[in-house]
Amino acid sequence: MNDTLERVAEVIASRKGADPDKSYVARLFHKGDDAICKKIGEEATEVVLAAKDIRIGGAENLRQKLVNETADLWFHCMVLLAHHDLSPNEVLAELARREGLSGLVEKAQRSTRGEHAD
Amino acid sequence: MNDTLERVAEVIASRKGADPDKSYVARLFHKGDDAICKKIGEEATEVVLAAKDIRIGGAENLRQKLVNETADLWFHCMVLLAHHDLSPNEVLAELARREGLSGLVEKAQRSTRGEHAD
Amino acid sequence: MNDTLERVAEVIASRKGADPDKSYVARLFHKGDDAICKKIGEEATEVVLAAKDIRIGGAENLRQKLVNETADLWFHCMVLLAHHDLSPNEVLAELARREGLSGLVEKAQRSTRGEHAD
Amino acid sequence: MNDTLERVAEVIASRKGADPDKSYVARLFHKGDDAICKKIGEEATEVVLAAKDIRIGGAENLRQKLVNETADLWFHCMVLLAHHDLSPNEVLAELARREGLSGLVEKAQRSTRGEHAD
Repeated sequence: MNDTLERVAEVIASRKGADPDKSYVARLFHKGDDAICKKIGEEATEVVLAAKDIRIGGAENLRQKLVNETADLWFHCMVLLAHHDLSPNEVLAELARREGLSGLVEKAQRSTRGEHAD
Repeated sequence: MNDTLERVAEVIASRKGADPDKSYVARLFHKGDDAICKKIGEEATEVVLAAKDIRIGGAENLRQKLVNETADLWFHCMVLLAHHDLSPNEVLAELARREGLSGLVEKAQRSTRGEHAD
Repeated sequence: MNDTLERVAEVIASRKGADPDKSYVARLFHKGDDAICKKIGEEATEVVLAAKDIRIGGAENLRQKLVNETADLWFHCMVLLAHHDLSPNEVLAELARREGLSGLVEKAQRSTRGEHAD
Repeated sequence: MNDTLERVAEVIASRKGADPDKSYVARLFHKGDDAICKKIGEEATEVVLAAKDIRIGGAENLRQKLVNETADLWFHCMVLLAHHDLSPNEVLAELARREGLSGLVEKAQRSTRGEHAD
């Protein structure tokens, strides 16, 4: 599972310039970054709706629904990154950098600066 | 870098029930899922703004800005997942499942069903 | 123009329970409030994209585009309000209430409280 | 109530160039359109959360909460419009134009085109 993001990113990158009639991702690239951004706004809303549905309850698989919507959101983020020749590895590197900041040494420091990665 | 998401998820999980005055994430958990959802809506908008800024141009590091905003968005998604005792591994499993669907064999099938992961 | 919101709200309300095959709004009501909420997330993103496009420039009618996307967003807000038997008049009443707060007398008070309606 | 939007728009416009320390709106104008756009993404998410809360139930005034969040969203849309020297009257004119399209004559036509304003 460790290289999943990388493999998905490769599939996405391989769709740049591909026939828009044959692939959903090729179609998004073809439409341009506004179309990709709209999907991100849409999928973020679906993540929020799925989270609230867990609180409402009453149906099965509501937690899996949240997982699926998050996967949709991250997937479209990777399409946007690929549009700008960026990869999820760069996002992971940024998260790792911040996680490094959250080591014991910087603890006091961060809590006053209000950094996210604590 | 492979286990970055896992390590970040562990740090996040360790903040559940922690003193809200000492950690940004503990504070988010304390406020509840609406507060986390608001951050997701906010960070998704920042990803969109960063993407458009690349097109506008005129400043350095605009692509790194997009990476950073995506990291913010994914980070808060992980906080929401943790709130529901879910981990990014489940999101990766879902992405891997879809990526499996995008193998050569299912190609014709998918293109008519309009699945995302092609 | 003064009663535009009211007239649009009447048209929207008249679509509740109408044949989903004959009207876009009847279709939204039929799909339920999640479908309406998704549109609000989507249209809000389009407002943001339109605003950034004005800064990017290079095409005509970019300001009218922002007006149109705002109209889309407000329209779908009115569909959501109607779904809950609420009308835009109640939104206007709330805005008027806040605008009343912004009179000269309360000025000092508000600036410290950080109220929106100043 | 008919001229509420106009009066609110006047208050907003009067804050352009005002001292950012004295008014929330002046502060938003001072920060620029990205700050205003972020608020729109944030307030749209709050509208969605308020709508879901009505379904969850269990607290009083949940419908008024939706009205308040919609007022917040529209208010910040008006700040964005003002930033581009546009007024809510132009949004109303666009809504009126579409509402005109929804008259009986164009009915058949629209239902096939899928226009919003039916």
